[in-house]
Amino acid sequence: MEANGPNASKVLDGPTNPMVTPLLTDLYQFTMAYAYWKAGKHNEQAVFDLYFRKNPFGGEYTVFAGLEECIRLIANFRFTEDEIAFVRQSLPSSCEDGFYDYLRGINCSDVEVYAASEGSVVFPKVPLMRVEGPVAVVQLLETPFLNLINYASLVATNAARHRFVAGKSKLLLEFGLRRAQGPDGGVGASKYCYLGGFDATSNVAAGKLFGIPLRGTHSHAFVSSFMSPDEIVDKSLRSKDGSTTCEDFVNLAQTWLNKIKWSTSLHGLFGETNQSELAAFISYALAFPNDFLALVDTYDVMRSGIPNFCAVALGLNDLGYKAGGIRLDSGDLAYLSLESRKFFLAIEKEFEVSGFGKMSITASNDLNEETLDALNKQGHEVDAFGIGTNVVTCYSQAALGCVFKLVEINNQPRIKLSEDVSKVSIPCKKRCFRLFGKEGYGLVDIMTGENEPPPKVGERILCRHPFSESKRAYVVPQRVEELLKCYWPGNSGLKRGDLPPLKEIRQRCINQLEQMRSDHMRRLNPTPYKVSVSAKLYDFIHFLWLNEAPVGELE
Amino acid sequence: MEANGPNASKVLDGPTNPMVTPLLTDLYQFTMAYAYWKAGKHNEQAVFDLYFRKNPFGGEYTVFAGLEECIRLIANFRFTEDEIAFVRQSLPSSCEDGFYDYLRGINCSDVEVYAASEGSVVFPKVPLMRVEGPVAVVQLLETPFLNLINYASLVATNAARHRFVAGKSKLLLEFGLRRAQGPDGGVGASKYCYLGGFDATSNVAAGKLFGIPLRGTHSHAFVSSFMSPDEIVDKSLRSKDGSTTCEDFVNLAQTWLNKIKWSTSLHGLFGETNQSELAAFISYALAFPNDFLALVDTYDVMRSGIPNFCAVALGLNDLGYKAGGIRLDSGDLAYLSLESRKFFLAIEKEFEVSGFGKMSITASNDLNEETLDALNKQGHEVDAFGIGTNVVTCYSQAALGCVFKLVEINNQPRIKLSEDVSKVSIPCKKRCFRLFGKEGYGLVDIMTGENEPPPKVGERILCRHPFSESKRAYVVPQRVEELLKCYWPGNSGLKRGDLPPLKEIRQRCINQLEQMRSDHMRRLNPTPYKVSVSAKLYDFIHFLWLNEAPVGELE
Repeated sequence: MEANGPNASKVLDGPTNPMVTPLLTDLYQFTMAYAYWKAGKHNEQAVFDLYFRKNPFGGEYTVFAGLEECIRLIANFRFTEDEIAFVRQSLPSSCEDGFYDYLRGINCSDVEVYAASEGSVVFPKVPLMRVEGPVAVVQLLETPFLNLINYASLVATNAARHRFVAGKSKLLLEFGLRRAQGPDGGVGASKYCYLGGFDATSNVAAGKLFGIPLRGTHSHAFVSSFMSPDEIVDKSLRSKDGSTTCEDFVNLAQTWLNKIKWSTSLHGLFGETNQSELAAFISYALAFPNDFLALVDTYDVMRSGIPNFCAVALGLNDLGYKAGGIRLDSGDLAYLSLESRKFFLAIEKEFEVSGFGKMSITASNDLNEETLDALNKQGHEVDAFGIGTNVVTCYSQAALGCVFKLVEINNQPRIKLSEDVSKVSIPCKKRCFRLFGKEGYGLVDIMTGENEPPPKVGERILCRHPFSESKRAYVVPQRVEELLKCYWPGNSGLKRGDLPPLKEIRQRCINQLEQMRSDHMRRLNPTPYKVSVSAKLYDFIHFLWLNEAPVGELE
Repeated sequence: MEANGPNASKVLDGPTNPMVTPLLTDLYQFTMAYAYWKAGKHNEQAVFDLYFRKNPFGGEYTVFAGLEECIRLIANFRFTEDEIAFVRQSLPSSCEDGFYDYLRGINCSDVEVYAASEGSVVFPKVPLMRVEGPVAVVQLLETPFLNLINYASLVATNAARHRFVAGKSKLLLEFGLRRAQGPDGGVGASKYCYLGGFDATSNVAAGKLFGIPLRGTHSHAFVSSFMSPDEIVDKSLRSKDGSTTCEDFVNLAQTWLNKIKWSTSLHGLFGETNQSELAAFISYALAFPNDFLALVDTYDVMRSGIPNFCAVALGLNDLGYKAGGIRLDSGDLAYLSLESRKFFLAIEKEFEVSGFGKMSITASNDLNEETLDALNKQGHEVDAFGIGTNVVTCYSQAALGCVFKLVEINNQPRIKLSEDVSKVSIPCKKRCFRLFGKEGYGLVDIMTGENEPPPKVGERILCRHPFSESKRAYVVPQRVEELLKCYWPGNSGLKRGDLPPLKEIRQRCINQLEQMRSDHMRRLNPTPYKVSVSAKLYDFIHFLWLNEAPVGELE
């Protein structure tokens, strides 16, 4: 596998998608940059927080993803002459030349990025990233950072939710490329579904880019491209151990089909099976004797697909090969999986083929959290789920609303007010901590001012709701974890945090999700996880709020 | 503008996103290719139809988009050695070497693509594309074609629907990059929103790639990055004609603010305005005196934003500049736009500034079809809408379900059955026509077998519903248009259809939508447009259906 981890060398590669350049931003970032530059303000030190206000999918948690792509962008953030020429033609001709010289010199060496670890579980209002640096440069990063984080975190969360419903033991396969929102909607989905706990993807490009395991069988078209077994020219198949060769595998499969048909336990379950399907299965088995998987619903699952599959699988078994299993792509998946399992078990018993009853059953066809849940309730025999549209497009909620807000400039804290309290920003350069209780679960996240003493293990800490006077609680943490780590040190002299390989990030995600209290995780009416500010920060927020709010007159 | 039209030379560029390669496909396309190759079937001539089954967004029409990217892919369809090596490591090691030599030789010179024109209005079941060629090669194209068409058509349709509700006279701006599903979710959205009738985008990269007009102002952060007008160092502004220089534009704006405050018609409407906002507006005006646009809702629209904006705009007016307008990004947009308009008109009257009342008002903040419709019903004074999340992620329906079905192989028609009638495919290599009535509207689309005589103007043609016995009608067309044109001729000797510049495609889309009968277009309960098959094709479908369906026994 070619998983080009970014730690292969100290120099970071650019973003996975070559379209992610400094121009992948909103025009107003350039107009603002010009206005800052013109006012001599462009180098003022600004602090921005990137956060979201509400967990997606009606849940109470979110998986943070997309960080590595952001860091790769800033590590390579430079305007080409061609890009500068385009910015010039996009801005009013009155803009001064000096600005383009300024753009020419921009890089991110004086930007600092502190962020949650990719793959960690995060909550509303707490910054996922804190970005510090010259205001004009950091503004240019706003749009690409939001773009790279929003969808990545959304789809990773969606994948984690699907995993939660499917259960740990099931194989989850992402099959969404064809329905994704564009090419890297597809590639991104594959990456972040894997991060969120899926096991494999059908997307070959994503497999190559990120080392994600690949899965695939065949389509309905493959089945209907055959007419009958007569058209199969090369019918021979060597046994697995190479000791013998079956000269007419077609005949072997047909013989088995007859045996099944007239067997004691299966007699009467089916009549004539579809011959183009049988031909397709035989051809596929001849091509992949070690990996024979069949899509069994092109004509009729129980009267054609399953018998045809079993006939071919038994033929393979005679030659020492073990068939891989079936895929169901339509109909009542719970019922069909149960019936298929019965059929396999009957074959195991009747023909004494040990293990045949355990044949793997994959189900696909518009699966989502609800249908997985319904399948669980009905009872089913599915081993693997292939999920496409719903997981990759995040069909039930197609966007996460991360925002990027100025919280400090020139050491002055800034607040963004709104008539909607949930939209008021939390000012100041902050530190963020997760406080853990006795059982090892996270109890609360707390934000403090940068210079406050951090919360200590065993100490009684007042945690206040940022906006609600009455909501507060004392917490005595058994463990304290600082949430934001330095991932791009700029001139700070700090060490840049590791960007581990995707597999490790995936494992971190799985571990963190397992450490969540189950009431935060449940699909319906989960308990909100608490997010708070320190008493000092609370007071300061409300002091600033009063200061900034316009004073009206009651008439 | 650098709109690199594909007709710049005869050689087509590759897809816009360099990630679109022959590996951007599902693994099963390779396993099937291997199985076809192993069976000696890989060069069998296959015909696939790409179509969807249901219009999106509860509507009765769809805009076809994404074709050019597909053609660019096949024009450059070649496996690199690196890609072949990856396919080899992804397939079972038992696969024979000859297959990789075969992959090495693949290109699309023997593939033919017939498609609807990009930007045209299309309907369910009628093929958007007919792809013919060696079955193994055409299968490899399935996933990338679906990926490139599904989202493109979905977002173009979404844009067209937003345009329909907003009305022709409004400016529609796409602001969605930050919330899009990944980087080219953003770039694709910008392209296909423009195609579907939007006027501009905020996305600079899309502006560069496709020549889409760019728009942008500034953000809330820009406003809150300022403290007070005192921090403005260079306060001078030359008049537009260059004849004079105002040495203290800050003072000029402040003077105007006072005049407004104490003016007859506006007295009492506001008290102290926010000084950091005033500073930000003045700075922005100093940077863009010809293009002064202001986001007026950071603190309080009517008590701060609008008065501050007007003060700066009147200062600019003194120097011969015309302000561009305001943007509202929160609150009751209908009400605030009406109040802002009143304020502008009062200024026009009181200070005799001709045209000031016509100041442009842009509204943004989670707009979608419903909110646009609600604004229309309430009455508003918005001139331009900035739409993000809802248009780019297609929030109300995040995926279009285009499928790619085998309809013929080796001159044998193929049908895909399903217990769900809407999922039965229409077999045979087909031609598709739109029949127009006297008023110039499309009446019905009809599919015929390839060798049937095409429908003729003035002739009575029986149009049958493909699956419903009783639904049929005679139509006498006044005009007949063949829907599928050759866009990739392969070895057919046909001329390759033009791939016009995006602007022309956009115009085609706008024209075609205007030619739709209004009852198909309305937002709620639109009338379905009729889609039919010829009598001959109808009979053949049902003959094949009976032939393929399994014969069961009633117990």
